[in-house]
Amino acid sequence: MASIIRDRAASTQAMLDAFDDASLIAAALRFEAALARAQAAEGVISDAAAIAISSAAEALRITPDELAEEAAHAGTLAIPLVRRLRAAVGDEAHAREVHRGATSQDLADTALMLQARQAFSLLEPDAAALAAALAKLADREAETPMLGRTLLQPALPITLGLKAVGWMTAIDAARARLSHEADGALMLQLGGPVGTLGGMDGRGPAVVRRMAEALDLSAPTLPWHARRGAIAGLGSALAILTGEVGKLARDIALMAQGEVGEAAEPQVVGRGGSSAMAHKRNPTGCQLALSAAIRAPHLAATLISALPQEHERGLGGWQTEAPVLAELFQLTHGATAAMLAVIEGVELDRAAMARNLEHAGVGSDFGEAAALVQAALDARGRD
Amino acid sequence: MASIIRDRAASTQAMLDAFDDASLIAAALRFEAALARAQAAEGVISDAAAIAISSAAEALRITPDELAEEAAHAGTLAIPLVRRLRAAVGDEAHAREVHRGATSQDLADTALMLQARQAFSLLEPDAAALAAALAKLADREAETPMLGRTLLQPALPITLGLKAVGWMTAIDAARARLSHEADGALMLQLGGPVGTLGGMDGRGPAVVRRMAEALDLSAPTLPWHARRGAIAGLGSALAILTGEVGKLARDIALMAQGEVGEAAEPQVVGRGGSSAMAHKRNPTGCQLALSAAIRAPHLAATLISALPQEHERGLGGWQTEAPVLAELFQLTHGATAAMLAVIEGVELDRAAMARNLEHAGVGSDFGEAAALVQAALDARGRD
Amino acid sequence: MASIIRDRAASTQAMLDAFDDASLIAAALRFEAALARAQAAEGVISDAAAIAISSAAEALRITPDELAEEAAHAGTLAIPLVRRLRAAVGDEAHAREVHRGATSQDLADTALMLQARQAFSLLEPDAAALAAALAKLADREAETPMLGRTLLQPALPITLGLKAVGWMTAIDAARARLSHEADGALMLQLGGPVGTLGGMDGRGPAVVRRMAEALDLSAPTLPWHARRGAIAGLGSALAILTGEVGKLARDIALMAQGEVGEAAEPQVVGRGGSSAMAHKRNPTGCQLALSAAIRAPHLAATLISALPQEHERGLGGWQTEAPVLAELFQLTHGATAAMLAVIEGVELDRAAMARNLEHAGVGSDFGEAAALVQAALDARGRD
Amino acid sequence: MASIIRDRAASTQAMLDAFDDASLIAAALRFEAALARAQAAEGVISDAAAIAISSAAEALRITPDELAEEAAHAGTLAIPLVRRLRAAVGDEAHAREVHRGATSQDLADTALMLQARQAFSLLEPDAAALAAALAKLADREAETPMLGRTLLQPALPITLGLKAVGWMTAIDAARARLSHEADGALMLQLGGPVGTLGGMDGRGPAVVRRMAEALDLSAPTLPWHARRGAIAGLGSALAILTGEVGKLARDIALMAQGEVGEAAEPQVVGRGGSSAMAHKRNPTGCQLALSAAIRAPHLAATLISALPQEHERGLGGWQTEAPVLAELFQLTHGATAAMLAVIEGVELDRAAMARNLEHAGVGSDFGEAAALVQAALDARGRD
Repeated sequence: MASIIRDRAASTQAMLDAFDDASLIAAALRFEAALARAQAAEGVISDAAAIAISSAAEALRITPDELAEEAAHAGTLAIPLVRRLRAAVGDEAHAREVHRGATSQDLADTALMLQARQAFSLLEPDAAALAAALAKLADREAETPMLGRTLLQPALPITLGLKAVGWMTAIDAARARLSHEADGALMLQLGGPVGTLGGMDGRGPAVVRRMAEALDLSAPTLPWHARRGAIAGLGSALAILTGEVGKLARDIALMAQGEVGEAAEPQVVGRGGSSAMAHKRNPTGCQLALSAAIRAPHLAATLISALPQEHERGLGGWQTEAPVLAELFQLTHGATAAMLAVIEGVELDRAAMARNLEHAGVGSDFGEAAALVQAALDARGRD
Repeated sequence: MASIIRDRAASTQAMLDAFDDASLIAAALRFEAALARAQAAEGVISDAAAIAISSAAEALRITPDELAEEAAHAGTLAIPLVRRLRAAVGDEAHAREVHRGATSQDLADTALMLQARQAFSLLEPDAAALAAALAKLADREAETPMLGRTLLQPALPITLGLKAVGWMTAIDAARARLSHEADGALMLQLGGPVGTLGGMDGRGPAVVRRMAEALDLSAPTLPWHARRGAIAGLGSALAILTGEVGKLARDIALMAQGEVGEAAEPQVVGRGGSSAMAHKRNPTGCQLALSAAIRAPHLAATLISALPQEHERGLGGWQTEAPVLAELFQLTHGATAAMLAVIEGVELDRAAMARNLEHAGVGSDFGEAAALVQAALDARGRD
Repeated sequence: MASIIRDRAASTQAMLDAFDDASLIAAALRFEAALARAQAAEGVISDAAAIAISSAAEALRITPDELAEEAAHAGTLAIPLVRRLRAAVGDEAHAREVHRGATSQDLADTALMLQARQAFSLLEPDAAALAAALAKLADREAETPMLGRTLLQPALPITLGLKAVGWMTAIDAARARLSHEADGALMLQLGGPVGTLGGMDGRGPAVVRRMAEALDLSAPTLPWHARRGAIAGLGSALAILTGEVGKLARDIALMAQGEVGEAAEPQVVGRGGSSAMAHKRNPTGCQLALSAAIRAPHLAATLISALPQEHERGLGGWQTEAPVLAELFQLTHGATAAMLAVIEGVELDRAAMARNLEHAGVGSDFGEAAALVQAALDARGRD
Repeated sequence: MASIIRDRAASTQAMLDAFDDASLIAAALRFEAALARAQAAEGVISDAAAIAISSAAEALRITPDELAEEAAHAGTLAIPLVRRLRAAVGDEAHAREVHRGATSQDLADTALMLQARQAFSLLEPDAAALAAALAKLADREAETPMLGRTLLQPALPITLGLKAVGWMTAIDAARARLSHEADGALMLQLGGPVGTLGGMDGRGPAVVRRMAEALDLSAPTLPWHARRGAIAGLGSALAILTGEVGKLARDIALMAQGEVGEAAEPQVVGRGGSSAMAHKRNPTGCQLALSAAIRAPHLAATLISALPQEHERGLGGWQTEAPVLAELFQLTHGATAAMLAVIEGVELDRAAMARNLEHAGVGSDFGEAAALVQAALDARGRD
């Protein structure tokens, strides 16, 4: 928290931005504007009020530091934010319609989901590109022999393509899970204080549908203030993707050991050096991914631990989620982007692979490895 | 570990049995028998050998204690088990065909998946029954007013049906995730030492398909010795279900507090008593579920932490999974079965609900709660 | 990460500052200055070089954003920071002596320890004040009867003082553990690339002792680049303190329920309100503490998971620690400070306690509660 | 749970026994006998009753399966156990004195602590032997040059002794933490239903002191039914020791890679083989330790997550602890014993070390490594 240096060591600038204060405030104001417009469309508030509110929301500029202090004092972001928005609306009657029927958590959850959707749209293309790069590698190296290793010991021959297609399959499966969970999780939140959609003249469900469409989120049948499984599922999917990226990183790092010499991260000026040893070429991308793979499981578990939330809206449980989900997206994207760059430029030493294989004295029969590679690439093509 | 008293305090006897040694040995022997039969069908080994092996596997009785000691010494279950099976086959030529082309992890993973499928078939019906019981409760109590509570404070009116339909929706969503993950995870494992399907005369993939069908597991395109995301996904789904059951338990336990008095666990002779206070009626089912909800997230995270497994088959990572997945099934079933019993017999005090609501002085307008209940029940019916 | 609003919802401004970029850069520069001075005192470098380096380090101002970008690219903070410091020194011969014999991790670890010491000095007084406030409460209410509750059910009478003295004892024990772990963990790091203290003309250990004294850290016998148990121990101690503060928060929140009515958080203008319900008085301090208590255990476990670091300096493991330890301090202080404010102003309703006790019908004999309170307070006085 | 084969793959038979049902029942009966004797000594019950109770407790034989079923039904072990003990006492007046003033958790916690003390007495000597073996290795190899590796890349020369003394220091520090935490945690529990020591005629504290002495546990000033930091601290210390043993295992496993060839686990008949590859010599001890190091952090975190227990005795939180603490001891001992056997017989190839060092081309100056080894061994001797 609070250190750009440490945050950037673990993530991309784009993903850090997706969860920064500017993004949070913008998302919160989009919630209020969309709420007003949807309520006007359903006749709950006047068009004039909706126009006044959404105009004010678009124009409003808020200093994060001050808001942070007030939100911390109030125990909720909504109170100081709504107060500012009401002041910006000016007209008292219109101002009263700001946040109508909504509760703090409606704003907080929807803002988080808007940020998460943006985050997913940053992450998924890089994960797809990583899988595609691995597919290409697998195809090219389907018959390149190398030593298979089990329990960190020399075992029997495989091909580099088989190794790569295993990585690819892992990433693809993790991507599929992530997309599935994102579909389920990226929902609007609107329920009012206790989730009854009161205070909207019986138009609550219609307001929900309009808002969801306007914000490009799905519309839940019920408010989900204390039903957080979808967030936990999303978090688990992120952590599992990170773990699979970590498996790729571990393998590359092991292949890059001096005595093995089968792989090296791409040479980039100013990257992977040592402050003390000029000769070093550190696997910096693998390092980032492995670090993320240590942290992510615990963050996913935090979201699951938070599930038993009390009654209609919990005390402590849901307040844990936003920073943890943000961190999960940040670590997952950091790891994925780092390994994408690694794989796109990885230097592979087929001679070293041949030498290590020969030295192991386990023959050269790599069984049906090449056929398996082809089958997996075919299966991918069909999806 | 190793205490039936402590295990039974957290799970059902049926689920403990699903992961006991008898079940493990039976699953391991089924793997060997199915392997032999599939190899015979593909002409890799003779029919005579397959018959000898599968007959021996069916007849073989193994004492767990002795096997446990030898497996611990060898560092793998397969070695002592295969040795016993070969001895039981008798004929030396046939005996040599036992475990042909397979590796220890093929046996261990497939046995675990066979146990997991059995476990899923115990768990899912109880989870479905719990959701159904909650749906019935929601329907019956759609318009029963009670106090909605947020941040553990009195808030505004809801209905008991809204509360119940929220629980139902949470369980249903968790069940859907679990079924989805089980579909993906319950796969045969067969790859041989380094996942190349060597040693089967080029018939490896066909053997895989036959074995998978015979064992009622799905057939993976590639061996998944070091690609463990599906197990981590299954574990996460179990933990999330447990968390949602825990949310239900927390609510019931809070409603059962003396000063609240809105709910009580069903009165069962000999259950929920105190060794020191005769008047007590403890929420024993909620206790079990809440305890599971504390443990399960950490177990799911263990499986995610284990993902970065080295090369073709890892050192340490995959050895963590079987006991942890077993525990997750056991805790999840323990919690689910306990709360099913609670909900099927829960005593609800509508007068206390009315009294608490009135005392809170927040009116009686429960907004669109009843309509939301109906919408959620309708959506359930459509699925 | 990267959101002041979300960070401040969980911690104090002072603790966020203790781990911000300004603090990190200052600590890193203090490391370099202290290294130069200690090396000069031992004759490893010239006095002139030490003066030039330490003057430059004191005067140097670095923009975090730019440094963050470069450090992320290089994979280590030390490279861009040392480059800037060398440029600031100017004289080429002196500049070469910057960071002599040190490695990136020497700088990173020592900077983290300097931040951790500052963090501990913020946290401990508040934890002590919380324990003292609880002691005072226990003393005052040693004989105030209230209902004891077990398994969330009415049980038998206790006194409020017994409850308070239990909280106090828990906080005191957690403080003692934390101080003990901080004593062990707050060490200088200096070993050079592989921990041999090479490149310092045989004066390495003497340089270590001088630097440690100058920076008010302890001097380890050996570099601890890949021996991270002390950090894991410190993290666990922080999480346990947070857990005990969370226990206090849970009890207060339960006592503050509408139907129980025995406690309320202090009324502070603008705090604990609801964006939708004017009547609410939310237990905002408890909320913060309970949220921290959900997150902290997983962060502590992250540090333990990172322990098996490879060889002389690991890949991925140690890079996880700094942000996680920072977060642990931030959450622990957030929780502790919040509950200190709660306890200092908590409103206790003895009449409600008496009423709830009477209503439970379990008599009024609170055993030896008052004597136990006295014994625990006496034991505290003796320590 | 419930599989001896899987349990033994991760622990020692002795440690599994320490937490089996026979041990649990014996500990529970010792609690009841000691309670009766201490109460008689303080005049709370008659000597005749105490003799009857303690004789019955010593003679009583209980079948675990039946007891497990009844305890699961009752939601507590104490009820069926006390019922059996009362029946065994026979005389009705004496039988009524069984478990006097105690509550279920008094029995459960004290039994767990008796088991934990036994567990500690199994673990600590092996951990000490491991540290001693590493000290010996460090001393012998203080000047044996080898390649130092950082970020899994060749770095600069070290000595094998420096590596070994680093392992030793890590184990020693973890042992010191564990002893410290065990001292704090191994306490008697006796408080009665709500921790007031009621029902003992004002002799409660004296009974506590007598019982504690008789059972060789420490006597707490206050009951600790809902104050569980000491258990969490003990669990963390176990996990940290496991993590340090895991670090040792990771290093040995990396050194044992085919291409590195610097170390091999001791050759033991029937150990480390492969069911498919006759040539393999798997690092089976390292595997066990690395697996434990993945699981243990999550178990420690479970204990910390359980801390915020409600009121006088919690619902769900404390019921999680016993199986988790048992597992932590089992994994820690499994890992420690396995690596003790590895280190006692490890085959080290100094020629390979020399060759790898030379091949790295980083010279042969290992700085002050030998002096650091000596300093660390001296510091150890002084403690």
